[in-house]
Amino acid sequence: MTTESKTKSKNISELRQDIVTGDWVVIATGRAKRPEDFIQSKREAKENDIDSCVFCNPEETGQEKDVLIYRTADKNWSLRVFPNKYPAFSRGKVPCSLEEGPYFAMSGTGYHEVVVTRDHYNQIALMEKMEIAEIFDAYQERYLDLMNKKTVNYISVFHNHGNEAGASIVHPHSQIMGIPVVSPYLKLELEGAEKYYRHSRHCVYCVMSEYESQAQKRVVFENDKFIAFCPFASRAAFEVWVMPKKHSPYYERITDKDKPELAEVFQRTMSSIYNSLGDPAYNFYIHTSPCDGKDYPHFHWHIEILPHTSTWAGFELQTGIEISTIQPEAAAKHLRKQIKT
Amino acid sequence: MTTESKTKSKNISELRQDIVTGDWVVIATGRAKRPEDFIQSKREAKENDIDSCVFCNPEETGQEKDVLIYRTADKNWSLRVFPNKYPAFSRGKVPCSLEEGPYFAMSGTGYHEVVVTRDHYNQIALMEKMEIAEIFDAYQERYLDLMNKKTVNYISVFHNHGNEAGASIVHPHSQIMGIPVVSPYLKLELEGAEKYYRHSRHCVYCVMSEYESQAQKRVVFENDKFIAFCPFASRAAFEVWVMPKKHSPYYERITDKDKPELAEVFQRTMSSIYNSLGDPAYNFYIHTSPCDGKDYPHFHWHIEILPHTSTWAGFELQTGIEISTIQPEAAAKHLRKQIKT
Repeated sequence: MTTESKTKSKNISELRQDIVTGDWVVIATGRAKRPEDFIQSKREAKENDIDSCVFCNPEETGQEKDVLIYRTADKNWSLRVFPNKYPAFSRGKVPCSLEEGPYFAMSGTGYHEVVVTRDHYNQIALMEKMEIAEIFDAYQERYLDLMNKKTVNYISVFHNHGNEAGASIVHPHSQIMGIPVVSPYLKLELEGAEKYYRHSRHCVYCVMSEYESQAQKRVVFENDKFIAFCPFASRAAFEVWVMPKKHSPYYERITDKDKPELAEVFQRTMSSIYNSLGDPAYNFYIHTSPCDGKDYPHFHWHIEILPHTSTWAGFELQTGIEISTIQPEAAAKHLRKQIKT
Repeated sequence: MTTESKTKSKNISELRQDIVTGDWVVIATGRAKRPEDFIQSKREAKENDIDSCVFCNPEETGQEKDVLIYRTADKNWSLRVFPNKYPAFSRGKVPCSLEEGPYFAMSGTGYHEVVVTRDHYNQIALMEKMEIAEIFDAYQERYLDLMNKKTVNYISVFHNHGNEAGASIVHPHSQIMGIPVVSPYLKLELEGAEKYYRHSRHCVYCVMSEYESQAQKRVVFENDKFIAFCPFASRAAFEVWVMPKKHSPYYERITDKDKPELAEVFQRTMSSIYNSLGDPAYNFYIHTSPCDGKDYPHFHWHIEILPHTSTWAGFELQTGIEISTIQPEAAAKHLRKQIKT
């Protein structure tokens, strides 16, 4: 059976492998569009008024049932997690392989959830430290559940803010995807960290965070437990990484004592980006070890924040060499100025 | 001397290496902006009227001296190539290395040129076959010159069209960068092609183009010498690859007999994308072997065309797993319908 007829009949996503590089792409037919929908004139930004917001009242807008809900003392919900209505990956049994000629693909089995905080206007940069800590709680709680699912080998936790960063819904929300394959970008980091350890007997991220804390050239904010800095080889202007100072390969093992410390560093960083750059669009993403049953002792989890300050053009998109027009040292200095102490 | 003070004093670009992945980024201080320039409200699309176009009359807008010029029978110029006024890489001697703590960088020595065709409104999708063939001529001619420069190990030839694809100037133009390091993305392709050859004794791109031509599921257009198809694992909706049917690792060795054939396939593909998708923004890019003195017998040059049909969000940008919302088979079918025969 061809991949085309098989996926058409089942209408599930498909993970297709690039025959040359081994990278994966997702053909998400659950979010399928007709070819005509790609015509430029028809692509308009979606209305995102609070009145028609699908996340303000998830019960009334036909969202799926919550898998997690946090409530305040007055019993109102403050945060909820539910399956994405238009999933890029669909729940199902063990992925079946789909071959066509020289190519390989498999069904896009997995989980795709949405983490929604209550207030439509209260974006992360404006939140209190403890509101942010609650989001990190939710990430951890869902992670610990999804990592035990049979089909999940890797979990991607990310947050898009702003239209230019791909957020089609204004209401603040993060996404969690549990998928059968490890991301190619994380793979490069895992291999790099392992290689660095073999040569030097040190964790490359520990070396980095210690050096940054000591050099104080690119630090945005730090406390006893976490450090935020513009990486030496920033891929985008004002890119910031947040990482634990103590070696730790697995985000899901973060302690309740450490979460407010992480939230503090994150809150200062996000509000500084908001104030310095005028509420830019951004993406952030947790880089943590896969949950494929193997150990990754030399990896060191961290969060990468990418403000959307320029359009990536041909050279960047296609070579993978990115051109940044500001020195990370100058970006960090500018961000530091906006930190409220 | 620190990287910061060194580059500040010389005001040249810097290639910084990611200590974990080994990837390179460019800090292009020649295109430097002040931190304030990144504030959202100040980022407005540039005016690009024909009256103020910097490429319509390059002599009058202070562009650098041509390195190549083609003229029509009436002595008017039809195409010219000159150094980019705001280069991401600056001409210079052998790159010097710049170290800081655990990090490594080198000066961003290289070449950055612009290929401009005369007519402000005549974008590639609207050009005649022979106008496109002339562009391929210019790519080849500049490539053959730059590949012999001491500091150049890799040449990137690309074209951005439309604001969303990073083209800040409307007037049709391509860019050529000759740089000291090989692009990480091409490296993956080189390694993948080599690995495939070791296992099967076949070129993976020959296998692909033969299979596509025979299966006729994803072909957009083909003639005797070249084939255009939507790749099985398309990273973006309506992505198209154009490749020679005969094995060839090096773009710069294309013959004068083959160039009109390439131009025919390219012209049909680009006009079909233009008609099907309503003049979308796009990037295209020549993937060809490095010019670092090594042989790459198992690589197979090709052009990748990426229409900008959606915004890449957190998941795609940061995992490297891209989500496409249309099957490549459906995209190809849609493009085929618009081919004028």
